[in-house]
Amino acid sequence: MVEQNNNKEVMYNEDDLRQLLIDENIDSFREIFLELHPYDQAQFYEKVGPDIRKTIYQFLSPQEMALIFEAIELEDEEYEKFLYEMDTAYGAEMLSYMYTDDVVDVLNELDEEHRESYLEMMDSETVEEINELLAYEEYTAGAIMTTEYVSILENSTVRSAMTVLRNEAPNAETIYYVFVVDDNHRLTGVISLRDLIVSDEDTLIHDIMNERVVSVKVTDDQEEVAQIMKDYNFLAIPVVGQNREMHGIITVDDIIDVIDEEASDDYSKLAGVSDIDDIDAGPFKAAKKRLPWLIMLLFLGMLTASLMAQFEATLDKVAMLALFIPLISGTSGNSGTQALAVAVRGIATGEIDEKSKAKMILREIMTGLITGIVCGIFVIGIIFFWKHTLIVGLLVGAAICCSILVATIAGSFIPLLIHKLGVDPAVASGPFITTLNDVTSILIYLGLATTFLGQLS
Amino acid sequence: MVEQNNNKEVMYNEDDLRQLLIDENIDSFREIFLELHPYDQAQFYEKVGPDIRKTIYQFLSPQEMALIFEAIELEDEEYEKFLYEMDTAYGAEMLSYMYTDDVVDVLNELDEEHRESYLEMMDSETVEEINELLAYEEYTAGAIMTTEYVSILENSTVRSAMTVLRNEAPNAETIYYVFVVDDNHRLTGVISLRDLIVSDEDTLIHDIMNERVVSVKVTDDQEEVAQIMKDYNFLAIPVVGQNREMHGIITVDDIIDVIDEEASDDYSKLAGVSDIDDIDAGPFKAAKKRLPWLIMLLFLGMLTASLMAQFEATLDKVAMLALFIPLISGTSGNSGTQALAVAVRGIATGEIDEKSKAKMILREIMTGLITGIVCGIFVIGIIFFWKHTLIVGLLVGAAICCSILVATIAGSFIPLLIHKLGVDPAVASGPFITTLNDVTSILIYLGLATTFLGQLS
Repeated sequence: MVEQNNNKEVMYNEDDLRQLLIDENIDSFREIFLELHPYDQAQFYEKVGPDIRKTIYQFLSPQEMALIFEAIELEDEEYEKFLYEMDTAYGAEMLSYMYTDDVVDVLNELDEEHRESYLEMMDSETVEEINELLAYEEYTAGAIMTTEYVSILENSTVRSAMTVLRNEAPNAETIYYVFVVDDNHRLTGVISLRDLIVSDEDTLIHDIMNERVVSVKVTDDQEEVAQIMKDYNFLAIPVVGQNREMHGIITVDDIIDVIDEEASDDYSKLAGVSDIDDIDAGPFKAAKKRLPWLIMLLFLGMLTASLMAQFEATLDKVAMLALFIPLISGTSGNSGTQALAVAVRGIATGEIDEKSKAKMILREIMTGLITGIVCGIFVIGIIFFWKHTLIVGLLVGAAICCSILVATIAGSFIPLLIHKLGVDPAVASGPFITTLNDVTSILIYLGLATTFLGQLS
Repeated sequence: MVEQNNNKEVMYNEDDLRQLLIDENIDSFREIFLELHPYDQAQFYEKVGPDIRKTIYQFLSPQEMALIFEAIELEDEEYEKFLYEMDTAYGAEMLSYMYTDDVVDVLNELDEEHRESYLEMMDSETVEEINELLAYEEYTAGAIMTTEYVSILENSTVRSAMTVLRNEAPNAETIYYVFVVDDNHRLTGVISLRDLIVSDEDTLIHDIMNERVVSVKVTDDQEEVAQIMKDYNFLAIPVVGQNREMHGIITVDDIIDVIDEEASDDYSKLAGVSDIDDIDAGPFKAAKKRLPWLIMLLFLGMLTASLMAQFEATLDKVAMLALFIPLISGTSGNSGTQALAVAVRGIATGEIDEKSKAKMILREIMTGLITGIVCGIFVIGIIFFWKHTLIVGLLVGAAICCSILVATIAGSFIPLLIHKLGVDPAVASGPFITTLNDVTSILIYLGLATTFLGQLS
């Protein structure tokens, strides 16, 4: 996509850059390469082979390399591969120049032994910060925050705040917010750079800071943090501990990744793939990701078949009944997935909470009734005009109506139940609930048919 | 969720605020209310009834109200409702204080006549800007950009840039980037506030600006813009015309909305709901959104039934065959949805382009073969141990293997085809492709069964 953008034609020529590396033309390479945005640097770095990357390590300092590693977007296991290409000392130095949240992402992918060997080579203050972050549970605010932020004391002046900012600018992840703390490093306020630059230099921070600072706890779920930042349009949010002591900040770029990740996650679970596989993955890797679902569902499908076997006698007598099995199970699956999707997204975005739960279930029961009756009537009509039989039509119509009602209630109730148990409701995903609805809808259909068998023959 | 956050307990008491309005205690109300973040103000504003909102309009100036209206998150049609509660002159003045991108969002929801009446009351310069934005097609960069940004000429100094920033700070949507333009207002560079505050005041902007500025065109798709901002971690991106003349900027908060919207959109299409209905919608509204899909799929299901009718004789002879119909159509539907989800997300994120298309199809064919063979073998084994028949097992296994292969190819090929035709590939959504795969898989199954019928009885 990037290549299609005409505004970027000035950017760089990949082949030229590669040639400069092959020719070991260090000066020209650095001149062109270091002008690039870190994202473009990372794209180039990922694309060239390991031999050429070796030359890049020679030509760039660990500090310059750190910017690339922060901008890189890799499958988790690839970080390891790239890191092990480097000399360990070089790698450790590079890591020490990265923002702590990014270092933690990388170190989380390494085995214990390698992680330790890198940490041993880094200075003790950084190691302490990193170890603190490594200790937080995955998907919490603590795990995605960074410790590089700018803080000042309440009784500073705007002038001294600006001096602090100028000094911290090269290191802090954002300098657009300055966090105000007391002597115990407890968060008491926030002030934006926007406010600072329009204020008189002698003003006390205490007089212009915003005391109603919104913060999150280190243990808060990342999805909750994302929701707050989205609602308030923040560029960064402070992360505090039990006594409001500042631990770090989370910046908007990390939140975009969270939003993207969670949405993809819900989406791929609805589709029954453990995650949306990247396009470069080979067929074996793709098959490996998809097979667990397919095989699990095969077994559930066998369950459906064995339940149907109980009605084999009925099917044997009226073969026409079999014609409508896909229709009934399909319709019930579709309405269940619709209800499920609404419930899963509602829970994920926080729109459905304790209070609105009962209301939602009630709404879904009504919706299931309405859609069930409408679809049932349609089916009776169609079958009557097609097969000229009212009794089969009534049977199929009644089965469809009941199945839609049951599927709609299940689709909204099951995610709520799973959420209550503290599990991500998206695991009650599409294929799973579809198979469940298959079973119930066929039971309803063939159960009704067996009961009224006398009328059918 | 917000209520659960202990850090926010200091925020405000809704009932107290409401009481202040009922008591017409303007001073206390303003003192507390104006301290709140606009998002909290908007939440309160939305919750109270129209009578109390009338008092809010009396107590707040149009400028103060503009902040609330920008922060509000409404269903499209609700903007209209709130706006019409206000006096027209008050509403028009409020609109003129809002950022142009937000005004355009509101005006887009009004009918021609009302829109004109508001525009007539606003000053001509603002109206011109708004009309320019209203003319851009929906979902393009032009339609979501704002025209409130800070720009300076190349030959300015850092000092004069800072002066411009201080003056523009109250109006510009972001002051963290300053865009550098030439005499014809063509974009030539960008400089961040971060760079400005660490530079010497007499430095020329031209010497420190970044000339490799990444920009988008007014006609670019909003999804492309989101991808670029996400990749580069920008807080804002400039939007230019044909000759690189600056038209506006898009800020990160708007991009978060785009990412959210597009992901929800793909998700709801996979689930077969036109959009994820909001929790407050009644059952009739919800049913209305879901029924079109269900009924369309009912007709397709009838098509499946009428195709199966061709094989009624076969089903009549071997009733056992009917037992495996849900299994086969379910498995084929599942594998088709998996392939579809990967393709739709790949196209949406730009990972799949012209070059990687052929590679992806090839990968999917291989993946379909592998998953098909593995599932087929499983099924043969299960049926052999359950029913002690090899021939039915072979038949069902072969049908499953073929159906998975066909479904996987269809799941990846159809979205590519639809995308090629210039339509959003997500319309080839889950239920649709599932039904298609139902038909083909049952045809394969019953076709094979009829061919080998001699062996079956």
